[in-house]
Amino acid sequence: MIIIVKAGHESIVDEIKSRFNGTNEVFVHHNRVAIQGISEKDLNSVEKGAIDLIIDNVPAAVQGSRLFHPEDTIVTTAHSKIGGDHFTMMAGPCSVESAEHVMKMARVAKSGGATILRGGAFKPRTSPYSFQGLGEDGLKFLRAAADANDMDVLTEVMDQDHVDMIAKYTDIFQIGARNMQNFSLLKAVGKTNIPVMLKRGMSATIDDILNAAEYIAAGGNHQIIITERGIRTFDNKYTRNTLDLGAVPVLQKLTHYPVIVDPSHAAGHTEFVTPEALAGVAVGASGLVVEIHDDPAHAFSDGAQALKPDEYREMAAKAFAIRKTLATPIKEKSEVKL
Amino acid sequence: MIIIVKAGHESIVDEIKSRFNGTNEVFVHHNRVAIQGISEKDLNSVEKGAIDLIIDNVPAAVQGSRLFHPEDTIVTTAHSKIGGDHFTMMAGPCSVESAEHVMKMARVAKSGGATILRGGAFKPRTSPYSFQGLGEDGLKFLRAAADANDMDVLTEVMDQDHVDMIAKYTDIFQIGARNMQNFSLLKAVGKTNIPVMLKRGMSATIDDILNAAEYIAAGGNHQIIITERGIRTFDNKYTRNTLDLGAVPVLQKLTHYPVIVDPSHAAGHTEFVTPEALAGVAVGASGLVVEIHDDPAHAFSDGAQALKPDEYREMAAKAFAIRKTLATPIKEKSEVKL
Amino acid sequence: MIIIVKAGHESIVDEIKSRFNGTNEVFVHHNRVAIQGISEKDLNSVEKGAIDLIIDNVPAAVQGSRLFHPEDTIVTTAHSKIGGDHFTMMAGPCSVESAEHVMKMARVAKSGGATILRGGAFKPRTSPYSFQGLGEDGLKFLRAAADANDMDVLTEVMDQDHVDMIAKYTDIFQIGARNMQNFSLLKAVGKTNIPVMLKRGMSATIDDILNAAEYIAAGGNHQIIITERGIRTFDNKYTRNTLDLGAVPVLQKLTHYPVIVDPSHAAGHTEFVTPEALAGVAVGASGLVVEIHDDPAHAFSDGAQALKPDEYREMAAKAFAIRKTLATPIKEKSEVKL
Amino acid sequence: MIIIVKAGHESIVDEIKSRFNGTNEVFVHHNRVAIQGISEKDLNSVEKGAIDLIIDNVPAAVQGSRLFHPEDTIVTTAHSKIGGDHFTMMAGPCSVESAEHVMKMARVAKSGGATILRGGAFKPRTSPYSFQGLGEDGLKFLRAAADANDMDVLTEVMDQDHVDMIAKYTDIFQIGARNMQNFSLLKAVGKTNIPVMLKRGMSATIDDILNAAEYIAAGGNHQIIITERGIRTFDNKYTRNTLDLGAVPVLQKLTHYPVIVDPSHAAGHTEFVTPEALAGVAVGASGLVVEIHDDPAHAFSDGAQALKPDEYREMAAKAFAIRKTLATPIKEKSEVKL
Repeated sequence: MIIIVKAGHESIVDEIKSRFNGTNEVFVHHNRVAIQGISEKDLNSVEKGAIDLIIDNVPAAVQGSRLFHPEDTIVTTAHSKIGGDHFTMMAGPCSVESAEHVMKMARVAKSGGATILRGGAFKPRTSPYSFQGLGEDGLKFLRAAADANDMDVLTEVMDQDHVDMIAKYTDIFQIGARNMQNFSLLKAVGKTNIPVMLKRGMSATIDDILNAAEYIAAGGNHQIIITERGIRTFDNKYTRNTLDLGAVPVLQKLTHYPVIVDPSHAAGHTEFVTPEALAGVAVGASGLVVEIHDDPAHAFSDGAQALKPDEYREMAAKAFAIRKTLATPIKEKSEVKL
Repeated sequence: MIIIVKAGHESIVDEIKSRFNGTNEVFVHHNRVAIQGISEKDLNSVEKGAIDLIIDNVPAAVQGSRLFHPEDTIVTTAHSKIGGDHFTMMAGPCSVESAEHVMKMARVAKSGGATILRGGAFKPRTSPYSFQGLGEDGLKFLRAAADANDMDVLTEVMDQDHVDMIAKYTDIFQIGARNMQNFSLLKAVGKTNIPVMLKRGMSATIDDILNAAEYIAAGGNHQIIITERGIRTFDNKYTRNTLDLGAVPVLQKLTHYPVIVDPSHAAGHTEFVTPEALAGVAVGASGLVVEIHDDPAHAFSDGAQALKPDEYREMAAKAFAIRKTLATPIKEKSEVKL
Repeated sequence: MIIIVKAGHESIVDEIKSRFNGTNEVFVHHNRVAIQGISEKDLNSVEKGAIDLIIDNVPAAVQGSRLFHPEDTIVTTAHSKIGGDHFTMMAGPCSVESAEHVMKMARVAKSGGATILRGGAFKPRTSPYSFQGLGEDGLKFLRAAADANDMDVLTEVMDQDHVDMIAKYTDIFQIGARNMQNFSLLKAVGKTNIPVMLKRGMSATIDDILNAAEYIAAGGNHQIIITERGIRTFDNKYTRNTLDLGAVPVLQKLTHYPVIVDPSHAAGHTEFVTPEALAGVAVGASGLVVEIHDDPAHAFSDGAQALKPDEYREMAAKAFAIRKTLATPIKEKSEVKL
Repeated sequence: MIIIVKAGHESIVDEIKSRFNGTNEVFVHHNRVAIQGISEKDLNSVEKGAIDLIIDNVPAAVQGSRLFHPEDTIVTTAHSKIGGDHFTMMAGPCSVESAEHVMKMARVAKSGGATILRGGAFKPRTSPYSFQGLGEDGLKFLRAAADANDMDVLTEVMDQDHVDMIAKYTDIFQIGARNMQNFSLLKAVGKTNIPVMLKRGMSATIDDILNAAEYIAAGGNHQIIITERGIRTFDNKYTRNTLDLGAVPVLQKLTHYPVIVDPSHAAGHTEFVTPEALAGVAVGASGLVVEIHDDPAHAFSDGAQALKPDEYREMAAKAFAIRKTLATPIKEKSEVKL
């Protein structure tokens, strides 16, 4: 149940909270109180008089819900704002390959307008015998590259025991698609105050993503970004995954967290990354996260889906242009006499 | 096998054709000859001297393939061109409801820039007890509404025995998703010279669509438009289908037929139609086909997904604006010293 | 709404029927009347007194529903009963290839216990350039082979204009997966009195199948068999489709039509056909339909999934043995003191 | 590459191993050596003379492959053997609810023929606010219940930091579907010598499961059981997941690990659990794992899919009967003169 308290009666919020806290899950956002497991009859008459509205049909992932928190969450890092009216470009190599290479890629990313540098130091690979990432060394290289270019770092954490260590280097944790329901990991990043970018699992429903985000919020961390990166469907002959762009406005309706799009893992092949990225902008996403590489054929991982520097800059320029077009009011709507 | 004949040796095309015709499927496009079931050793030495290139690995749907027909097909009707650099808006009610109503909807469609009026007179309904359409009367109303507004008609044919009758009223046949592999129907429209808009089946792979289109082409009708309208996946709680926009650039790479997007059936709910439509433009589709209604709550079918007139015009204005943005060359690509 | 009339008040059934017939869809089964689009208040008091129970929440596919028709439908042909306690084997080649070959395959089918001979004379092929079947000649060969072995014929009808012609040769029409929502075809076979075996579409939900069956029933033909033959999912590397055996008891709960299993099209590879067939028996299906061939490598179609004669007979023997095991009451249930 | 050494030349195995070890991944099983990243030219002539066969096309998950390890793996615990000709019943409540309750359920499980007692003490719940299990107390109750009935314990580990603690109580670790690609967890159980039951992820392909199992094997633990428990598809209105029984014989062909079936999570509703369980036996699985409860309506979790004691015993009796039927040779195959 969500209780919306009347203006001027905010004091009742604390009363309600203290009465149910300890026995029930209680969450407060401004004049809204969410309480699990009670019904209207559990409220006393004083409280009822101060209540503007009671919402009964509330999703399990209540803290992430617009019903509880109507305003957009704006995730804020040193060089970036994600959400609301902002549009944020995030780019970088799939894997951190060396200090020099990630530095070079950071300059490319920046030249296209990115303020966030992505790069993997711990890689979730399907096979145990594939390259698993440079580890902490990779994080150092990534941090240095971002700092030299006044950018923020986004990197994946795969293991709850790495959270503290990675926290020393990153501005945003990435939780990968395969770990979207690794609840121990979600709880671990939920206890930090570092923003978390949560990627949709390959067969995660909209409700599944929101519940996964709630695991992070339940720990007290509300700086969450949700990423649509393609789902698994019956046809992956030509693309790696099916980018589900309809999920973007659906999520934006249901949750206050910013929603971004990863066209690289969806497309899987360079030639389809740019159209999918631009579609992601047009559908209204708050940002893009894309993989870039200057020599895709020799990339340590996922070279097939990396944009080359020029391709990336052209994509980025068009992305910003479409975002601007979307934000421009339509001047004259033609009138038609029905 | 596709044989590309050298410039100046075009006469060999007819020779090859006449030699294999009758025993093999042979198709000719300019200086390209596609022959099924032969290998290089079946060619004689004179022929080999005149050949520029032999392509061995050819899809079954050869006539629709870019390997056989590299140039874009432009489907042409009285008031519209679909494909190539053109961008085409198609709009109208789900069902033709009355002469007056479809006339009104035609004016709305036109006011948003549509040149093609869609409307169903024969409706494929999941249940046999649902409204099945006005039949031929509906076609008359639709034709009159289009003519009064200098528009073309697009309407669904569900039954091979209706092809000749519907041909009297429509400019473009629509084949619905459920009939994408109704081969008798595909063959029937393939024998006409009226353009065919073929909708992707709910679980049709890219190759399935191209093979379905080939059934039409095999009859001699090459005026084909392919429509992405959403596929069936594991989550349809919030949208009716999953719009697979990645399929658009994939299809554009593989086939010369124009590819358009139907955001209405994908979204299923009005509030998500516009974002999906704009994403469809940004991904590079050659057009949109959308459902509109002035009183969705009382629509005869699919009211939940119909845009109201003002919503439609705002969507259309943004769609054309994004199309223009996409077509505008990026002026200055920032140079970065790597 | 379904009205269950009290014993001794059966005369009221006709009264209700005649009152709503013409304005509403009305169906009668013994003492049950299904009426679309009315509510309890539309009944008069005399009627209400004679009513045992009113069921409000009724599926669109009401004639196929157990709510309307609780008893099993037993589909009956000259040599076979399908449904209820019966278990029926159906076997034969994918395509009818010649008079001699189908005769030979009929003997094999019979030797494994099949009473129904399947074989395709009109083939739905993904590509227009693939073998499309022998046509009416094939039907003649198939009929002769069945007659010589005292078997019934099951063969696919793909085209509504073939219904009358095929009716001359077959005992059961097959509607293929691709045509499950070809409503014109469903209506055409619904007007005949020949049993129809309806295959589940590749992405058809349970409700979709039941609605498709209702199109046949709406025409007056209630001799319907539903076939689970595998659905399209994200993994078809090792099997052609995903056999959804959970659908069998679900369908058996919802509908009175017999449900059978086609393991051949699901498995797609001979080595997996037998395990899937036996699982189909154990899950409770009323029968199996399997493809057999004495020389799969040279089959005209789908050779990869055809069982050879000995494989087929071994599978069939095990299938009948499992069916018998299922039907044998468990003698002693161990008692345990909780 | 897999090298099969000739009989009498086994000494060469150690030579090859020592030559490539350190630079390449090298695995040895009897007279088979799997080496990653080399080709035939990297072998010397002495070695080539001792080689019976070289297999070039080897899956990434080589240790789990039949090519490397043709014989069935038999997982062995104090009271159970899983794999080969054995058939093993595993049963118990979804959650451990109390010492008394799990003791009671253990007696029921045992009475149906189970030798392994399942029960969750750490529960992976979609929502952070749902019951998360009794933790270590639950493990103690579970262990006591198993010991009192001479059974083995199977329980889920969700968190790599719990591995050592849970190892004190369990005979088999369960890795849940959501954690199938939690590589840190897989590595952690791979370092123990306790058998691991790995459940297929909701959208995991066959290759994905085999690669996940390989993460366990790479740590040195080869006592692995693979569980098919239903996948996510487009229809979950009537069942929770789609049980993919075709995956069982496919996995049995590709890998030597035993494959079992979980009908409870697939069906999601009691009434469909028994048919799916029996189908799992008939398809050839090495065992079943089912959820039971004496009062499903008040179960702490997943009550809807729990079999009641009598339902369970009846299912189990039929399961063993079908297994016996499958194992009985077919006496007389009818001969037919073709």
